[in-house]
Amino acid sequence: MRYELYYWPGIQGRGEFVRLALEEAGADYTDVARGRRGMAAMRRLMDGTGTAQIPFAPPFLKAGRQVIGQTANILLFLGARHRLAPRAEAGRLWTHQLQLTIADAVAEAHDVHHPIASSLYYADQKREARRRADDFRRNRAPKYLGYFESVLAANAARGGWLVGGRLTYADLSLFQLVAGLRYALPRAMARLERKVPRVVAVHDRVAARPRIAAYLASGRRLPFGEDGIFRHYPELDG
Amino acid sequence: MRYELYYWPGIQGRGEFVRLALEEAGADYTDVARGRRGMAAMRRLMDGTGTAQIPFAPPFLKAGRQVIGQTANILLFLGARHRLAPRAEAGRLWTHQLQLTIADAVAEAHDVHHPIASSLYYADQKREARRRADDFRRNRAPKYLGYFESVLAANAARGGWLVGGRLTYADLSLFQLVAGLRYALPRAMARLERKVPRVVAVHDRVAARPRIAAYLASGRRLPFGEDGIFRHYPELDG
Repeated sequence: MRYELYYWPGIQGRGEFVRLALEEAGADYTDVARGRRGMAAMRRLMDGTGTAQIPFAPPFLKAGRQVIGQTANILLFLGARHRLAPRAEAGRLWTHQLQLTIADAVAEAHDVHHPIASSLYYADQKREARRRADDFRRNRAPKYLGYFESVLAANAARGGWLVGGRLTYADLSLFQLVAGLRYALPRAMARLERKVPRVVAVHDRVAARPRIAAYLASGRRLPFGEDGIFRHYPELDG
Repeated sequence: MRYELYYWPGIQGRGEFVRLALEEAGADYTDVARGRRGMAAMRRLMDGTGTAQIPFAPPFLKAGRQVIGQTANILLFLGARHRLAPRAEAGRLWTHQLQLTIADAVAEAHDVHHPIASSLYYADQKREARRRADDFRRNRAPKYLGYFESVLAANAARGGWLVGGRLTYADLSLFQLVAGLRYALPRAMARLERKVPRVVAVHDRVAARPRIAAYLASGRRLPFGEDGIFRHYPELDG
């Protein structure tokens, strides 16, 4: 089956977490909104035309007639289908729990540059962004990455992955979180990474997976940039 | 099996979404941190003592030896066990998708009074809170509640619930979102509710469920208050 991924064209954004899973799985998919008339198709689904399962926001995935929204939910679906999560319920839930925590970190990384409103420009909330960035660098980013470091240290399988002895979609997402934070806050991350070597190792091992390496080198991987979730404003980097 | 719910004592918070599911299911549970030595037990699990599946933050649920964190993930687990979600995968994912969207709305409702940092007092971010509250009242709350109104209108089962013809945990959570917003922003909600009659009807029908009504009238239901997620600061209500 050919999946249809719907996400804003031109940015990695939350769509990237889904792309990484599709790429690692070697799944057949179209990134619909990047193609001709793709945006119109995306808007129709968001308006509830052709589906009663209206997505609140992109990304969403069309799998046959099913329309699945919310990044973590899409990964829950793909994880079960493409062996990117354990088969047993306990492992499946644990993987999902980690994904939801990554999603929380991603939302906070976004709010660093948009603490007041997504509908306003960064320039209209620069002062507030500086305050929020201070807290994010000092408290929140260390807390999140330190948490994943603890999870990796506590994994009895000792394979270097978050869940058991195999790669899951949570590892792919942790790669993207690290990559995004490196782009957004290079100075803060240079300091922080020394304290989370296991997290950095997950990043590096994901980047070296043959399918992921091929993807990252391809035109399908969009660059980070100042319209995405992770943004590099030097004044927010301490 | 007796579940153990771990959540900060004294507030509804995110724990309330789990309590509502447990109460509607008639499940046997202990609200651990409200009891003697409960906080110490909660901290031990958060430090990774006795579990490799370390929770990032409360709430988390202990079910036998399994420790399950992240509110939406706990509901995914309980939904399957207590018929609070459809059995078929598509319906299960759709219910979860709605829950994740409610979780996003809840996180934004929190950030209305804490736009800069959870680690700071409200008094230290009042000016920023006022700006964020403006956007939340004008744009975000109408967008979220309008979305759930559309979902209810598009549900072919016409039973007045979000998913198919039966109550799911997403309905319980929508009840809590409406109750919380009513408490926090009574003036804004009085205006907004006129436009989302189906959402208000879900709130009312959930409140009238025998087990939920008994719970709401009991001492187990904590009051809303100025330490929770939904806070009533009149200056933020427009």
